[in-house]
Amino acid sequence: MIKLDKSSQNVILLLSCADRAGLVARISQFIYERGGNILDLDEHVDPVEKIFFLRVLWNEKLSLPLSELEEAFMPCAEEFCASWKIRFTGLKTRIAIFVSRYDHCLLELLWRNSIGEFAIDLALIISNHHDLAPLAAQYGIPFHVFPLNGDNKEAVERQEVDLLEKYAIDTLVLARYMQILSPHFVEQYQSRIINIHHSFLPAFVGSSPYRQAYERGVKIIGATSHYVTQELDQGPIIAQDIIRVSHKDTLDDLVRKGRDLERFVLAKALRFHAEHRILVNGKKTVVFD
Amino acid sequence: MIKLDKSSQNVILLLSCADRAGLVARISQFIYERGGNILDLDEHVDPVEKIFFLRVLWNEKLSLPLSELEEAFMPCAEEFCASWKIRFTGLKTRIAIFVSRYDHCLLELLWRNSIGEFAIDLALIISNHHDLAPLAAQYGIPFHVFPLNGDNKEAVERQEVDLLEKYAIDTLVLARYMQILSPHFVEQYQSRIINIHHSFLPAFVGSSPYRQAYERGVKIIGATSHYVTQELDQGPIIAQDIIRVSHKDTLDDLVRKGRDLERFVLAKALRFHAEHRILVNGKKTVVFD
Amino acid sequence: MIKLDKSSQNVILLLSCADRAGLVARISQFIYERGGNILDLDEHVDPVEKIFFLRVLWNEKLSLPLSELEEAFMPCAEEFCASWKIRFTGLKTRIAIFVSRYDHCLLELLWRNSIGEFAIDLALIISNHHDLAPLAAQYGIPFHVFPLNGDNKEAVERQEVDLLEKYAIDTLVLARYMQILSPHFVEQYQSRIINIHHSFLPAFVGSSPYRQAYERGVKIIGATSHYVTQELDQGPIIAQDIIRVSHKDTLDDLVRKGRDLERFVLAKALRFHAEHRILVNGKKTVVFD
Amino acid sequence: MIKLDKSSQNVILLLSCADRAGLVARISQFIYERGGNILDLDEHVDPVEKIFFLRVLWNEKLSLPLSELEEAFMPCAEEFCASWKIRFTGLKTRIAIFVSRYDHCLLELLWRNSIGEFAIDLALIISNHHDLAPLAAQYGIPFHVFPLNGDNKEAVERQEVDLLEKYAIDTLVLARYMQILSPHFVEQYQSRIINIHHSFLPAFVGSSPYRQAYERGVKIIGATSHYVTQELDQGPIIAQDIIRVSHKDTLDDLVRKGRDLERFVLAKALRFHAEHRILVNGKKTVVFD
Repeated sequence: MIKLDKSSQNVILLLSCADRAGLVARISQFIYERGGNILDLDEHVDPVEKIFFLRVLWNEKLSLPLSELEEAFMPCAEEFCASWKIRFTGLKTRIAIFVSRYDHCLLELLWRNSIGEFAIDLALIISNHHDLAPLAAQYGIPFHVFPLNGDNKEAVERQEVDLLEKYAIDTLVLARYMQILSPHFVEQYQSRIINIHHSFLPAFVGSSPYRQAYERGVKIIGATSHYVTQELDQGPIIAQDIIRVSHKDTLDDLVRKGRDLERFVLAKALRFHAEHRILVNGKKTVVFD
Repeated sequence: MIKLDKSSQNVILLLSCADRAGLVARISQFIYERGGNILDLDEHVDPVEKIFFLRVLWNEKLSLPLSELEEAFMPCAEEFCASWKIRFTGLKTRIAIFVSRYDHCLLELLWRNSIGEFAIDLALIISNHHDLAPLAAQYGIPFHVFPLNGDNKEAVERQEVDLLEKYAIDTLVLARYMQILSPHFVEQYQSRIINIHHSFLPAFVGSSPYRQAYERGVKIIGATSHYVTQELDQGPIIAQDIIRVSHKDTLDDLVRKGRDLERFVLAKALRFHAEHRILVNGKKTVVFD
Repeated sequence: MIKLDKSSQNVILLLSCADRAGLVARISQFIYERGGNILDLDEHVDPVEKIFFLRVLWNEKLSLPLSELEEAFMPCAEEFCASWKIRFTGLKTRIAIFVSRYDHCLLELLWRNSIGEFAIDLALIISNHHDLAPLAAQYGIPFHVFPLNGDNKEAVERQEVDLLEKYAIDTLVLARYMQILSPHFVEQYQSRIINIHHSFLPAFVGSSPYRQAYERGVKIIGATSHYVTQELDQGPIIAQDIIRVSHKDTLDDLVRKGRDLERFVLAKALRFHAEHRILVNGKKTVVFD
Repeated sequence: MIKLDKSSQNVILLLSCADRAGLVARISQFIYERGGNILDLDEHVDPVEKIFFLRVLWNEKLSLPLSELEEAFMPCAEEFCASWKIRFTGLKTRIAIFVSRYDHCLLELLWRNSIGEFAIDLALIISNHHDLAPLAAQYGIPFHVFPLNGDNKEAVERQEVDLLEKYAIDTLVLARYMQILSPHFVEQYQSRIINIHHSFLPAFVGSSPYRQAYERGVKIIGATSHYVTQELDQGPIIAQDIIRVSHKDTLDDLVRKGRDLERFVLAKALRFHAEHRILVNGKKTVVFD
């Protein structure tokens, strides 16, 4: 955790491009010339695809607006044909959580947020049910219900997008949201929708993974957090964890043990995302943790 | 670990039957009347199928032959319509290991056996290649090669069965044996062939699971030991373990990390099997560890 | 999880005594003669001390009061000179939680209790500070504050005992309660006070274990739940868990990661205790999980 | 794993110095100007001590001798008052293993080395007993015995140092070597003696850690690999791992489970050391894994 100094700001650059000599030299020189001091730097080169990935966090005294900093970096980025973004750690990512009826993931995120574990503004909760409104109220987060009836998905998603835009939401977290988002919706939030699936993917895709795990007699169950793509349960994996089970565990025990995994893995993924630690590499992720 | 007293013997009963009242009372009374002292007792009732599973280890002074003990227990077993077997811990399970070219699982089993970790007689190693003959020789275990050429599987399997019978082999361990056994062969060793699969099943069935895992970008890889059935990679799971991986790990790293899992998980499964700790429950196992 | 049938009741016997032949036979016969059906049975013999430990859960049709069942079992217990207790699963253990200012363990227990994970009546929360009163109120649990000023510990503990007795509390849970209970107080709740210590005991006893861990440069941190005895941090260990750390983790990161361990390990210990799965064996525990 | 290209070489720089702006820029510029392409770069700033740590791996076409490369880098290092070393991945670290009678760690290292897991030249094995000579012979490694009799430690250590120098040994690995090296000996191999301790340090320092763990009733045991310093079991920790135990595990079981930890943790530490992934930070380590 990096403490903020009011008279300066911390800047994060996430960048990927075709690998070549001189990338680190060029970028670190850019930072140095601005009077920046690098606090944390991670780089990775995909040895098969020859792609260079970088996350660098630096502190600089100039308190320029983001647009000027982006402009200053532009020539460098264009030279490398890079994908990139720059973020100030002082400007928190605005998050909306989608939930249905299970409270465990939502409570976990609300509580962690309340004690300052996440670098986020938790701005909005959206649900297709009213059940969790009181929990949202306890933590003072706006809660909007959009009931779904099987026919109105398209209309509801339009309303949701309007609301998300009104709240200037950057990233969506599906905290056991039991609805499938339309491809059109997903497209608008590429690498910005985080889901939790209650199995160690790719095992047990689809519904009822705990029942599938129980019937298969596995000795380990898991949970997987991933970015949502248009293919169900196929998005780039951000984080996974597992817990041991045995013949003594009933289906209810699997659900109970799995709840703990779900809330931890989802919280971990959100933390990585909020701290700009994740770069998507095709169907995979680079996570600089 | 239970020390053997020469003037007495330790007996293990494994039993399963439809659940009903009085089973533990009846069986523990049988043991008590023989002057036996229970050293370890585990029971489990499948709450869905209502099946009772029992493993009980006791010490008794009478040094009867196995057949007489089996005869004495028969009325009890028939009353419950039970599946059961009785074993003396002093009579070790006779094991044959099947290998191809990878040495890691074989060395692990040979070494563990050499320091007394397994309650087995490691009687025989069978391979389709000559590569590991020197390793077998170092540990003084007979090594037989049956080259396979794509046409001779049926004939080879007949020879192998002859050899297994000659050596009075009870259980086969496939220590990264890269051949698929015929259904006919498998049928003769039901719940007596232990395989190691290099993924956390049911993820990544079939060949090249590390490659599949690498391409999917999972954050955890695993290994699974299971009894072999006629359906590939579908047999009852005995043991599983996992290790974390990241974007830094190349395919070679996955193979390296996975090797460690494979040898540990296979060794664990063999230990459970050799100590008569496993009961098969349909497609699943009850492991009294 | 065993579902209760209204016309019958589930009974748990916890028992320990010097090992001898016939113990399981005698006790299972006692159960069978009452028409009881054993649902779960675990036994363990300490191989060094030769002590027999048993937990057996059975269902019986007779709905006798506890006192009559205890009376019926008395001759059997006396014959073995056993320590024992009988509990009905329908009668939940009454719990008081002690807290100071950290909310994480308290919230974890409150939430898990609210969704039915624990077989307890969470009757009371006691604190030396007012901070967590609102959280207690959200879950509708009485919250009593006893401020401590360095001079009044003896008087406060007397008041606390009075309150605990008024609420018929069986077991105390110290959910990061930052005060040391007096030996006299502890004596009254032998094996009935559960604490969470934020290190993998016996490493880092005493205060500031995360700081100690940070300065020592360990690669793993842990948390330990144990019964409180008169010696600080020396009581019988119930549950432990760990998480990996690295040079990247600051002291704040250790505290953050440790919080997750603390709440999980404490919740696990309370669940074991509430389900009567723990027998104390001198300075150690037998946990039939 | 980075494949070597014969016409070029891979270079690793390990460096630490007081933190200041421009370090990465300066060093990456140095590499770029030589035509080097960075393959892997890790940096860390100790947030308390404000020390900068760097490991950078690059590929360069010039096939200069090491001394010339060191000379070229010298001005840069002097400017930063840095501690540093440069290594070619093609020049493997020369290793001597010290053992007594336990074979498990030695076999693990020999086997892993035989399949190419370590970037080392395993040049020598030294023991105070003859027992493991045959194992060394199987893998073709010279094995020297220096019997210790309680009076001759000083003389023996002088002989050992002579032998180590004759074999040009860089790093010593104590693979369950049951003797304490003298402070004078240790001083000559600072941060170059790797030990495996059979507990999760700092718990259970000294002898018989498994017995201590058994008597304390812990639910987790561990193993710790660390650099040897003049204070017993106090050196900087490189790697740790743990395994769960329960009341069912006897002292022998702890020893058995612990063996697996010991060989894995020691192998991991040696791999990190051999790949120049470790920087010592006072009493702690920075491990760029």
